Amino acid sequence: MTQAIDFDRYDRIRPIRWTGDTLELLDQRKLPFEVEYVRCADSDAVAEAIRLLIVRGAPAIGISAAWGVVLAARDIDAADGAQTLQRLEPAMQRLNAARPTAVNLAWALARMRRVLAAAGADWREVIAREAQAIADEDLAANRRMGALGAALIAEGSGVMTHCNTGSLATAGFGTALGVIRAGVAQGRIARVFAGETRPWLQGARLTSWELQQDGIAPTLVADAAAAHLMKGGAVQWVIVGADRICANGDTANKIGTYQLAIAARHHGAKFMVVAPSSTVDMDTASGDAIEIEERDPGEMFAIGGVRTAAPDIAAWNPVFDVTPHELIDAIVTEKGVIERPDAAAMRAAFGG
Amino acid sequence: MTQAIDFDRYDRIRPIRWTGDTLELLDQRKLPFEVEYVRCADSDAVAEAIRLLIVRGAPAIGISAAWGVVLAARDIDAADGAQTLQRLEPAMQRLNAARPTAVNLAWALARMRRVLAAAGADWREVIAREAQAIADEDLAANRRMGALGAALIAEGSGVMTHCNTGSLATAGFGTALGVIRAGVAQGRIARVFAGETRPWLQGARLTSWELQQDGIAPTLVADAAAAHLMKGGAVQWVIVGADRICANGDTANKIGTYQLAIAARHHGAKFMVVAPSSTVDMDTASGDAIEIEERDPGEMFAIGGVRTAAPDIAAWNPVFDVTPHELIDAIVTEKGVIERPDAAAMRAAFGG
Repeated sequence: MTQAIDFDRYDRIRPIRWTGDTLELLDQRKLPFEVEYVRCADSDAVAEAIRLLIVRGAPAIGISAAWGVVLAARDIDAADGAQTLQRLEPAMQRLNAARPTAVNLAWALARMRRVLAAAGADWREVIAREAQAIADEDLAANRRMGALGAALIAEGSGVMTHCNTGSLATAGFGTALGVIRAGVAQGRIARVFAGETRPWLQGARLTSWELQQDGIAPTLVADAAAAHLMKGGAVQWVIVGADRICANGDTANKIGTYQLAIAARHHGAKFMVVAPSSTVDMDTASGDAIEIEERDPGEMFAIGGVRTAAPDIAAWNPVFDVTPHELIDAIVTEKGVIERPDAAAMRAAFGG
Repeated sequence: MTQAIDFDRYDRIRPIRWTGDTLELLDQRKLPFEVEYVRCADSDAVAEAIRLLIVRGAPAIGISAAWGVVLAARDIDAADGAQTLQRLEPAMQRLNAARPTAVNLAWALARMRRVLAAAGADWREVIAREAQAIADEDLAANRRMGALGAALIAEGSGVMTHCNTGSLATAGFGTALGVIRAGVAQGRIARVFAGETRPWLQGARLTSWELQQDGIAPTLVADAAAAHLMKGGAVQWVIVGADRICANGDTANKIGTYQLAIAARHHGAKFMVVAPSSTVDMDTASGDAIEIEERDPGEMFAIGGVRTAAPDIAAWNPVFDVTPHELIDAIVTEKGVIERPDAAAMRAAFGG
């Protein structure tokens, strides 16, 4: 018996706005204190916005890059899509290089390449339609995943999430946060805990703000407090997003995810990964093959411009870690739920 | 074959200075940016300094409280220790209430009570000698623990620590950091990783600064990155302090310790607890009986006065967690090493 979900009631934020000739991105570096959109008039501005984390979250990056291609094509005068594609290649490569780990970025650019290659004289309308379709499909996929994931959660459960996987990270509704939104809407979820997610504090700055906008009151916890929280029995499901899901179900996600998966297993809490199928990379056999992006150690030394560490020390600042499939109880994509994922189950679901 | 340890070379910081009539405490809220001592002229100022975390770390709190008793007794005119003790009781209770979890605080006050009860007309010298003895014994115990703990570590090891358990938390040399100092001095430890320790950032602000003063270069990591670090094989030992060790070896320590212990076990890294025997509480059967101090949720919303979270959200801010003895490979006190601690091994070492 599935309860209907009032999608709009729990989903008011939109991080990406296409005006018809400009891309407006909600500046996530300034949230929750300033709600300000940055206008990108060309594709290099979009690439820069991705690099600077003005826009973040794998699906939102993919959608932004698709609109970046539309912007790059604006001043091109070409007879057909194939010709356009050739001229766009440098701009597309700059977009692709903006973040190394997110597979959605490459996936969205590949979609744009594919429709361009086949397009005739109407290539300009074709790519605008494709970018819009990527955004629309993302929102629809998130709502579908929300319903699928929530169905796994027993009434009265406590859930914990990490980083931000919400409306802010997607075209809307969110992936892991979409499941949490749907679970709250259906009365299945009684308590939501958000890990603050150092060093960028996406949980403290973004997730807590975003849920608050939608009338859901999360409790913020230090990343290091998660195991202690689970020990007390407050968490039945850890629900996270993914930046890349490998052919065997191993999943790359925000640094700290792996630690939560280990703690969840230790306490008998379940662990759910929620991501659109565009995040699945059947060409990468396992997590061992994933290159982990490392960012400037300086992010570990300051918060909001206030220095927090002794000068001249070293720091290690990996952005992602890999959670092996053995620690994952369910992978939810818009195509369905894969319980106890492994290479066979992934192949059955995604081919390859 | 044990190498000699040059204790002074690796131990230059002293957080507690007794001038003869005033207690000077290094203000740990301002480190590493300002090195400033706060002068406490009476025992209530000491209690307040403990409450405000100007002085922190279980052993340093105990030593400070002992000097607080000396300050409280300064204006008392009494014939003997027993009479003094009666008049001191209110001040001692205020000192005892300054932090609820640290057993050393009660332990140091009990020592002061004991010598006072037995003292005659020379009670004033007796308590000053006792406070100094508590400090001197702490430093000696730390050096002894340093040698004992380091002996467990194989040459070329990487170690990870949490919070601050160093000179800053003790009379000098430190507990867990004392083992790390000794291990570095003997060439056993090749890499030191410090978890930043949200929300108070003792790792980022204190441990990294303190080790740097002594010429040891630590690498700072986000608390949530520890498991990913261990997966790469960089950590052979996690070495932490303790605020209370129970009769079965269960250990209360800074929030995040438990998560590290789970991750260490998952990766086959060893887990060492280092604390003076004054931290052992044989009257508390197990960790289940420990009251966990919770501090102001506001500590989760700001860093250095800069707000980091959305306004009006809830937070959970436990200060400690409990690591069950099953996850501990060795407890090191100045009395010796207890490997694979349990109730029987603890009883054999500490009676009761």
